[in-house]
Amino acid sequence: MKLAAGVFIMLRTDLSDVTPEIARAAIRTDDFTGPTTGIAKGYLQANLVILPKSDAYDFLLFCVRNPKPCPLLDVTDAGSPQPLQAAPAADLRFDLPRYRVYERGQVVAEPTSIAEWWREDLVAFLLGCSFSFERELERRGIPMRHWQAGTNVAMYRTNRRCLPAGRFHGPLVVSMRPIPESRVAETVEVTSGFPQAHGAPVQVGSPPELDIEDLDRPDWGDLPRSEPGDVPVFWACGVTPQAMIQESKPGFVITHAPGHMFITDLKI
Amino acid sequence: MKLAAGVFIMLRTDLSDVTPEIARAAIRTDDFTGPTTGIAKGYLQANLVILPKSDAYDFLLFCVRNPKPCPLLDVTDAGSPQPLQAAPAADLRFDLPRYRVYERGQVVAEPTSIAEWWREDLVAFLLGCSFSFERELERRGIPMRHWQAGTNVAMYRTNRRCLPAGRFHGPLVVSMRPIPESRVAETVEVTSGFPQAHGAPVQVGSPPELDIEDLDRPDWGDLPRSEPGDVPVFWACGVTPQAMIQESKPGFVITHAPGHMFITDLKI
Repeated sequence: MKLAAGVFIMLRTDLSDVTPEIARAAIRTDDFTGPTTGIAKGYLQANLVILPKSDAYDFLLFCVRNPKPCPLLDVTDAGSPQPLQAAPAADLRFDLPRYRVYERGQVVAEPTSIAEWWREDLVAFLLGCSFSFERELERRGIPMRHWQAGTNVAMYRTNRRCLPAGRFHGPLVVSMRPIPESRVAETVEVTSGFPQAHGAPVQVGSPPELDIEDLDRPDWGDLPRSEPGDVPVFWACGVTPQAMIQESKPGFVITHAPGHMFITDLKI
Repeated sequence: MKLAAGVFIMLRTDLSDVTPEIARAAIRTDDFTGPTTGIAKGYLQANLVILPKSDAYDFLLFCVRNPKPCPLLDVTDAGSPQPLQAAPAADLRFDLPRYRVYERGQVVAEPTSIAEWWREDLVAFLLGCSFSFERELERRGIPMRHWQAGTNVAMYRTNRRCLPAGRFHGPLVVSMRPIPESRVAETVEVTSGFPQAHGAPVQVGSPPELDIEDLDRPDWGDLPRSEPGDVPVFWACGVTPQAMIQESKPGFVITHAPGHMFITDLKI
């Protein structure tokens, strides 16, 4: 059941300072099914990609060759939904608020659990997420406009290409945060210290350089809200594998729904 | 043809400040077949592991799960001996001074080229090497005792276990450098800035903690030479995959001979 926006904002506030275990429990029971930005602050959040073992080598190599959009946090053993390094008590079949099931590059379902799609040959990959550095930026008084608006961050397909690996190829996807001009240098410096969360921005201030024509038409997430004097700052984004899946069209993949991340036990 | 020790020392001195291209040319023609420590200073050196595609996923995952001993620099496409990211003009079949060919965990040959073993299903992995930070330590006046002695660094099997991945499991191997006690803190600080070259030491000062009984009996490399007041400092080592191969006994693997590394085009 998807909650109404008001309830979602209330719940997100409630969950902002809880432990990852409590946040995942609320998610597992579908009491929370919204975007996870701002939840369980202080813990790394992760993008999820699940593939059959037969495609796992090409995808693992894709991540190794493209560490900025795809920083690897954990890879499960085939058939196991347990991320032993990132959160050993979690179950990746239930513990994300919303998933996307892809067949030949098309989304065929957006469930809140993937128990009925689970198979013994599936391997799950957890990749770092830029939500992880948002708390540190906010702590320094650098405003997160999408937090203030209670929306998902805006994400865009770019003209930059990832290094291909085997059958997998696709564009770099970026997330964008409007940052007050006077805080841009500090923002770059701070986020460069988070290599497991995409690190430093890939572009500052010029959407056309990434072939982004209109910031008000994001490819994923919500319409961004800027204040006067804000500069658009772009980070490599963990939705990059989803754009790669749409382009490469492997037979079967499950991911998180954009913005609806896995909350790990790993401290930032 | 293996060169006599005197010629080897002379050649190594000659090659210490050349470009990677010139160093690899001398190696390709077998004019140089010795350990590469101190050669082409300022460029990353790399450990080599070559496996059939059928074992490549488990090995790639082994590296991702054990980044300290196995920092990935490059992975070739199956059948290609060209490391596109680390040195696109190189050929991994000829450009290392000496190789080890393993069958079921046993060394069956130590050739200076692997042209006759090359197959279309082979994948080559390049892993960072601690030789890369030695130059920076020496530049700061922290002595590299094995450089002074003209020997290979000493390497030891430890009681620590790597995280297993699929069919692959084995112990952590470390390299040891005797460091003057007054420079140990600086040594730790400097090397922690080289994550692609094994990073900070895993142990300082206590061989028994790693189950190393006798420093004068290294498992790989040469007898170490210490000066009074030196402390043994241990780093995760790129020979770790070779200990894993000896224990896991995959059908067919080629590696560099310990100490005889691949010289990349990547600047330190």
